[in-house]
Amino acid sequence: MTDLNINIIEDGHIATPLGFHADGQHVGLKHKSKDLGWIISDVPASVAGVFTTNQIQAAPVQLTKYTIQSGQLQAIIVNSGNANAVTGPIGLQHAKEMQQVTADVLNLPTDLVAVASTGIIGQVLPIEKVTHGIHQLKATGNAPAFAQAIMTTDTLEKHVTISAEISGTTITMSGVAKGSGMLHPNMATMLAFITTDANINSDLLQKSLSDDVETSFNQITIDGDTSTNDTVLVMANGQANNPEILADTVAYAQFTQMLHYVTEYLAIHMAKDGEGATKLISVHTNGAKEMNDARMIAKKVVGSSLVKAAIFGKDPNWGRIIAAIGATSVIINPQNIDIKINNIAVLLASQPVSYDEQMLAQELEQDEITIDIDLHSGNAIGKAWGCDLTYEYVKINALYTT
Amino acid sequence: MTDLNINIIEDGHIATPLGFHADGQHVGLKHKSKDLGWIISDVPASVAGVFTTNQIQAAPVQLTKYTIQSGQLQAIIVNSGNANAVTGPIGLQHAKEMQQVTADVLNLPTDLVAVASTGIIGQVLPIEKVTHGIHQLKATGNAPAFAQAIMTTDTLEKHVTISAEISGTTITMSGVAKGSGMLHPNMATMLAFITTDANINSDLLQKSLSDDVETSFNQITIDGDTSTNDTVLVMANGQANNPEILADTVAYAQFTQMLHYVTEYLAIHMAKDGEGATKLISVHTNGAKEMNDARMIAKKVVGSSLVKAAIFGKDPNWGRIIAAIGATSVIINPQNIDIKINNIAVLLASQPVSYDEQMLAQELEQDEITIDIDLHSGNAIGKAWGCDLTYEYVKINALYTT
Repeated sequence: MTDLNINIIEDGHIATPLGFHADGQHVGLKHKSKDLGWIISDVPASVAGVFTTNQIQAAPVQLTKYTIQSGQLQAIIVNSGNANAVTGPIGLQHAKEMQQVTADVLNLPTDLVAVASTGIIGQVLPIEKVTHGIHQLKATGNAPAFAQAIMTTDTLEKHVTISAEISGTTITMSGVAKGSGMLHPNMATMLAFITTDANINSDLLQKSLSDDVETSFNQITIDGDTSTNDTVLVMANGQANNPEILADTVAYAQFTQMLHYVTEYLAIHMAKDGEGATKLISVHTNGAKEMNDARMIAKKVVGSSLVKAAIFGKDPNWGRIIAAIGATSVIINPQNIDIKINNIAVLLASQPVSYDEQMLAQELEQDEITIDIDLHSGNAIGKAWGCDLTYEYVKINALYTT
Repeated sequence: MTDLNINIIEDGHIATPLGFHADGQHVGLKHKSKDLGWIISDVPASVAGVFTTNQIQAAPVQLTKYTIQSGQLQAIIVNSGNANAVTGPIGLQHAKEMQQVTADVLNLPTDLVAVASTGIIGQVLPIEKVTHGIHQLKATGNAPAFAQAIMTTDTLEKHVTISAEISGTTITMSGVAKGSGMLHPNMATMLAFITTDANINSDLLQKSLSDDVETSFNQITIDGDTSTNDTVLVMANGQANNPEILADTVAYAQFTQMLHYVTEYLAIHMAKDGEGATKLISVHTNGAKEMNDARMIAKKVVGSSLVKAAIFGKDPNWGRIIAAIGATSVIINPQNIDIKINNIAVLLASQPVSYDEQMLAQELEQDEITIDIDLHSGNAIGKAWGCDLTYEYVKINALYTT
């Protein structure tokens, strides 16, 4: 892959790419904090999306999957505080009403407006608050507030804005996400929205996103549960006026690099801000036969409750790590596995090795723990990210009585 | 399946079936409690076994899988306190030494002696303590003590003994198990040993066990992690002198009923005694197309961290239950799912229903929570068992620093 000089725009936001606007407001779905926001493009943008694989899909997911089939999108309306999931026919009516009212206010056709929701499952959306709230949103509003408007139990805003030169034109890209957490305390959702002023058609944009999520959003796990509302949308509005990015070109390779920078950044920060997490856990698998194998093993290890609890307890418990490695369908050589924790070898060729316990103990105090695995059976690598399993996770998810 | 009158022998133990003996002693692998035991048959018994599917397999698992290929077994030697897993070539030597010394002491050929271990992973077995301990075991010893000798973090002994009349002969069967828990605090193991005086050949015994585990031991989950040492062994020594049980007979159907009574009892009690558990969770799937589908969904729901935490929190969080149902590869009709919690309907045809909150709150105080799911797409049923996710689970698995 060609090397690209990526600039991070520290004060950037979801409306920093040319021709985008955003806003976020409190409209009463949550107690106090912002709970409704939108992203608008000056012109119809190429759109790509990926959605939860759960067969139980929230009304806004059903609607938006249908809406973006046209390949064009100009606005996204998002609420937090209520997932509008498992709400039956009325739920779909409410999602369509959000779409319609947004389209009317912005004077757009409905099929250019996407809808996303996150929050409690199974409660009817208070649609009046939402539709009334849509009228309060500003076409050119407080763009940074959008990141707050989509948060549920997230403790941190998650967004990144970058720029790079592609084919002699500066392309800007921004992403914002909310993490997988609980609200009140039903299952919430991963939402991510990415804007760019690049000129690329929707088919190629969809290909780049579909390929990318295999190594970014699909490689994080907080608790192994799959939400009903997960949605990732990318809008590319072409306002940078770069020559159209075409398949199998250097420009496309560079665009995918930018996209991956944004998606991996958001994925890692979602993992780091997981339910009750005190530590980010990164697992890197090396020496696998296939990339899929490497990713599967990395995700199995980072998803293991025993590994997660051990990391919380600052215990270099490689017995649990190798047991997780052996528990997937990936064929491994049980006799030749290396495991390193923050670069300190604890297992080599499947044999325990003596290490500096004090040094490792210090490493386990860090906020970020990296587990390197070498399977010695090929050249493929894969990464996955998660967080430790803590009392706080149990508390957030248990200490609520209906 | 023919109806069978099964009698529970309250004061029974693993040596209650005719021609079996057992013992358990403390030999110093654990701090104080019993840590070595054996089961002996007066005559070579038909044997069947199932073992962990983890590719990382402890030395005793490798040895015992090989040993029972003969179809005959007369003794099982078991230690707790050390799993003899990921210990390299020396580990296999130690397992063979356990087998050899036991064979010498009992004057048996080594290939009639099985070995099992449970406890900490990756530490070399203190073989002298074990071999010295084997000489302390009595051929006709304290049989009930065997159940204690195999325990790790189990808080309760798990055993059951039953009898029933098959082809006019009283057949006795006994099972003992240790649960999936942590020790010191590496991954421990599920071990189960079943004895019966029934006359049945090893091929048919293996078939009955292999079929049975799909609906018993394979349907429990504590934390989704797979041990390196899981072992289930059944010995049938024919001392009841019943006519040989043959395939496709009423007698075989009755034998499988007895076997399932024992395996389901042990499985449920392992789930109930899971790491830090305060509640047994039973999930029953009804109306599936295939039994595999029903079992997969039941196991997914009972294994969901979100569902487990909600039950700990006494929260009837059906949003998490239906999200787990939708997250498997089983094709469902998202519009027509029923969910009941301790027989109180919370979701019908995928629509929330109003229920007596006080009554449900009382039910959620119970030690045993049953979730009934109806998929309305067939007649197949499946069950799975697990436990709630508690602070104590995190504590047991985290609050240990190497």
